[in-house]
Amino acid sequence: MKLVTYRASIEAEARLGVIDGDLVVDVEGLAASQGEDLPDNMLSLIDLGRPGLEALQECLEEAEGRYAPGTATHLANVKLLAPIPRPRKNIFGIGLNYVEHVAESAASLDTSKDLPKQPVVFSKPPTSVIGPGDGIEHNRNITQQLDWEVELAVIIGTTARRIRREDALNHVFGYSVMIDISARDNRRAGQWIFSKGMDTYAPFGPCIITADEIPDPQALDLWLTVNGVEKQRSNTRHMLFKVDHLIADISSGITLEPGDIIASGTPEGVGAGRNPQEWLKPGDTVVAHVEGIGTIRHPVIDATPED
Amino acid sequence: MKLVTYRASIEAEARLGVIDGDLVVDVEGLAASQGEDLPDNMLSLIDLGRPGLEALQECLEEAEGRYAPGTATHLANVKLLAPIPRPRKNIFGIGLNYVEHVAESAASLDTSKDLPKQPVVFSKPPTSVIGPGDGIEHNRNITQQLDWEVELAVIIGTTARRIRREDALNHVFGYSVMIDISARDNRRAGQWIFSKGMDTYAPFGPCIITADEIPDPQALDLWLTVNGVEKQRSNTRHMLFKVDHLIADISSGITLEPGDIIASGTPEGVGAGRNPQEWLKPGDTVVAHVEGIGTIRHPVIDATPED
Repeated sequence: MKLVTYRASIEAEARLGVIDGDLVVDVEGLAASQGEDLPDNMLSLIDLGRPGLEALQECLEEAEGRYAPGTATHLANVKLLAPIPRPRKNIFGIGLNYVEHVAESAASLDTSKDLPKQPVVFSKPPTSVIGPGDGIEHNRNITQQLDWEVELAVIIGTTARRIRREDALNHVFGYSVMIDISARDNRRAGQWIFSKGMDTYAPFGPCIITADEIPDPQALDLWLTVNGVEKQRSNTRHMLFKVDHLIADISSGITLEPGDIIASGTPEGVGAGRNPQEWLKPGDTVVAHVEGIGTIRHPVIDATPED
Repeated sequence: MKLVTYRASIEAEARLGVIDGDLVVDVEGLAASQGEDLPDNMLSLIDLGRPGLEALQECLEEAEGRYAPGTATHLANVKLLAPIPRPRKNIFGIGLNYVEHVAESAASLDTSKDLPKQPVVFSKPPTSVIGPGDGIEHNRNITQQLDWEVELAVIIGTTARRIRREDALNHVFGYSVMIDISARDNRRAGQWIFSKGMDTYAPFGPCIITADEIPDPQALDLWLTVNGVEKQRSNTRHMLFKVDHLIADISSGITLEPGDIIASGTPEGVGAGRNPQEWLKPGDTVVAHVEGIGTIRHPVIDATPED
């Protein structure tokens, strides 16, 4: 299933939806039309675990594509938000997780040319999340080196503490797309939360596709364009630490919880690694795609304070 | 006011309390006894802003130390929890923020001997928080270098985006004590979230003292002992970047929100900086204190998996 968070109009509240072709079907409304009870937001659905997804699947099958008035809206007529508009903690980011990106980073930034021996974890606050189409803020008082990174986002479904690799994917609820926007000139003594965690630096969407529809998360093409020009193209098979490894590793010390998000790292082709280097500026459009999940498109907007 | 989160018995739910001498007064119960409405948890009180604190102050004055049955409990008979048991996002940590600690870190770890030019920000997940008396987990499969850091914790009261230093302290709700536990051998390519963010690595408490009772957050003694032996003793005046500077700096790019926590860095005297180096082990007791706020005491417990 493809799950989204959406508004049916500008004034409307955010709702949980499931995609059926060109339609967004309101999950709570669909269930209610069948005398069932399902939640109106993504985190509550994740909290229900497998029974929640099974109940939703049954509701869809029961409906057979015929939806009660007011429960289905054409996709073109809704505003999609980030699938989890407000995560319950910082997003876990993974640095230097594609081999070629390790090399370009060592050549252009301050990282080592040696492959990391363990996943390099950092974080992005919930305030950095924006939904499809929202503007990426460029504040020229703070950065002259705003950069892009397309990533596969992993959404945790069930609590994971000290999980073995072979069990790790059982803890995944689904997958999404995230752009790990980075102000390269704002690293602080090697720490990345400020450079990668500013407001609007985590474009996220357009949907969460449930894990059952992604049999192998390590076989997905992903790409990113700026103003229509392809900058990144790779495949998740080139990850240094695979998704199961990331979950096993983080959960060895940090308990992962339902709704947690892991942005699993970016392949080569970032602006910092190009010759000459390239940076995002107001007016640019960034488009990111992961195979089988979808595409997000974001303008870069000027957010420099006036004073 | 001194605010706490507590359980009146092992089975009881967590409640918001205010300290009056040796008593914990239930905030919701106190208000209800006067026909008023105040919340039962810390984050909701913070969300009410100044009017919430004023209403609570009025309830206390109205009561004149006489509390309705069931609304006040002797401190010795309650279990204190972390004042915010479940933060809404990762705690903001500040590294290398006391001059002498920069020197000892450069001598013993992989950090620069130069003073940072800007605050060094990292984060600790909500899952790392424990309350007064709770055990700090030692997993010998993961670390042989478990270390202590006493810190002044700053609790944000109102949304802060692009705030000037001179306005910054107006955004503070109150102050508390945090120990920034660190597994020094778990840094990852310079990133600290894993080494500092593991479960139980953020002992936090015993209370939040409201900002009006701390006229100068840069004049507080703080100390830490291990097994009764003093390891750290300093004063917040030695911070490299003061609290107002930290808020102005972070909020220049990352919007701070009510309930956010900033652990403002530790002075010299950590285990890594000693000669020979010293590390925490199961059976140790760590006690941390910040003047005018209080003291937290934590055992180190063995949490090594059996298999």
